[in-house]
Amino acid sequence: MTKKITLAKTSFETKEFLDHISLDCVIFGFHDNELKVLTLQLKRTLENALPGGFLKKEETLEEAAKRVLKERTGLDQIFLKQFKVFSDPLRSKNNPQKPDYIDDDLPYDLDFFAKRFITIGYYALVDFTKVNATPDVFSQKCEWKNITESSNYILDHYEIIRDALEVLRLQLRHQPIGYNLLPDKFTMPELQKLYETILGRELDRRNFQRKILSYKILNKLGERKKGGAHKSPFLYEFNLEKYQKALNEGLSGTW
Amino acid sequence: MTKKITLAKTSFETKEFLDHISLDCVIFGFHDNELKVLTLQLKRTLENALPGGFLKKEETLEEAAKRVLKERTGLDQIFLKQFKVFSDPLRSKNNPQKPDYIDDDLPYDLDFFAKRFITIGYYALVDFTKVNATPDVFSQKCEWKNITESSNYILDHYEIIRDALEVLRLQLRHQPIGYNLLPDKFTMPELQKLYETILGRELDRRNFQRKILSYKILNKLGERKKGGAHKSPFLYEFNLEKYQKALNEGLSGTW
Repeated sequence: MTKKITLAKTSFETKEFLDHISLDCVIFGFHDNELKVLTLQLKRTLENALPGGFLKKEETLEEAAKRVLKERTGLDQIFLKQFKVFSDPLRSKNNPQKPDYIDDDLPYDLDFFAKRFITIGYYALVDFTKVNATPDVFSQKCEWKNITESSNYILDHYEIIRDALEVLRLQLRHQPIGYNLLPDKFTMPELQKLYETILGRELDRRNFQRKILSYKILNKLGERKKGGAHKSPFLYEFNLEKYQKALNEGLSGTW
Repeated sequence: MTKKITLAKTSFETKEFLDHISLDCVIFGFHDNELKVLTLQLKRTLENALPGGFLKKEETLEEAAKRVLKERTGLDQIFLKQFKVFSDPLRSKNNPQKPDYIDDDLPYDLDFFAKRFITIGYYALVDFTKVNATPDVFSQKCEWKNITESSNYILDHYEIIRDALEVLRLQLRHQPIGYNLLPDKFTMPELQKLYETILGRELDRRNFQRKILSYKILNKLGERKKGGAHKSPFLYEFNLEKYQKALNEGLSGTW
């Protein structure tokens, strides 16, 4: 990854980008029964920020979001969705001409950072274990934080996280979820824990199992979770064909 | 409305707006069993365009979208939803410095219109009968067109209509729809026709009725549609409390 970082660093110039438009990515991962979000710790200010960037003059927003995700996680081909544009004029009202996290040797136009920016919010669901967390040119650290840790974010970045979580909760009501967040094989309690973590509340075990099985998106495997006792829970996998169908058509089916 | 148009006309100056950012509104109405979209016919070029505009330096995108809707329809307080940002660099590649639909006496910066624009797409559902369709400063006519009429739109505006329709179809699968599109009292065949029109295909009468009633968002009224025969269909209204609940929680219910 070193080469890639070096490339990104030396090639950053504000003149490459359109004024007024940025993007921010809420990258969700699930680990140790907690929903995490990938964050950057900015140089010098030590504030937290979402992985994001600006829109190059010749690229689409989707290309920009994929570029950011690839640079921060090493991953491509991941679930990525535009969910909201944040356009409060006050969000960038106090932007300085040169934020403290900008290195002195970085080429930039004096007015670029002080301009008003609207930011396009994306959220992504990734396999926590596959992410190679990599800081960007403005940050000294790239790390997972629990979604409930709200302190020390710049601008409206924690509001963006909360809004992404809200959209994820809505998605949970009418689309299947989990394929990008769980390992290939998982137990029913693990799946339930994922749902509980996203929803922020406990669910009844029997109701959850009855409801999730009624959507017919799971294959029950003949094997139990390894390392457990004889009574350890059975493993499941997603039936990808039916999962994709439910993703397209919604859990309540077609009219 | 005349006064409002005059005001809008004389106050338009490109320097009021941010560069690179526009918005376009797909305003759906339902009339004569057809799904319609509100369109503008541009001056001189006579091309079709979506009602839209630019982002004022001190307003949010939501305020801009409400401003556009109010100016074109006379309505406020209507269902309005941001659904996608269109950011293909090619969409504004051939924008001239002065499009033919700009009046000569309008104050504008030479470079404004030729810049690259990303556009934020909104869709709105309105009561067809309540709209007072009003052209903007660039257009000579504001009128309803059938959504299947695809010809003569500028830029990617017909693609924006198709994408909004796609989002509306998805919404139909997990949220109730109709409150903003139908009169207060309606028959089951009228509601079914609305669904069929949005989906672009016919539905089985019995299945539709069974499914829509199972969501418990309708009140059956004691009266039949006026002017019909003794066998004319019963009238229904939406149960607004349950409708709102289903809007928030989705038709498949909470976990």
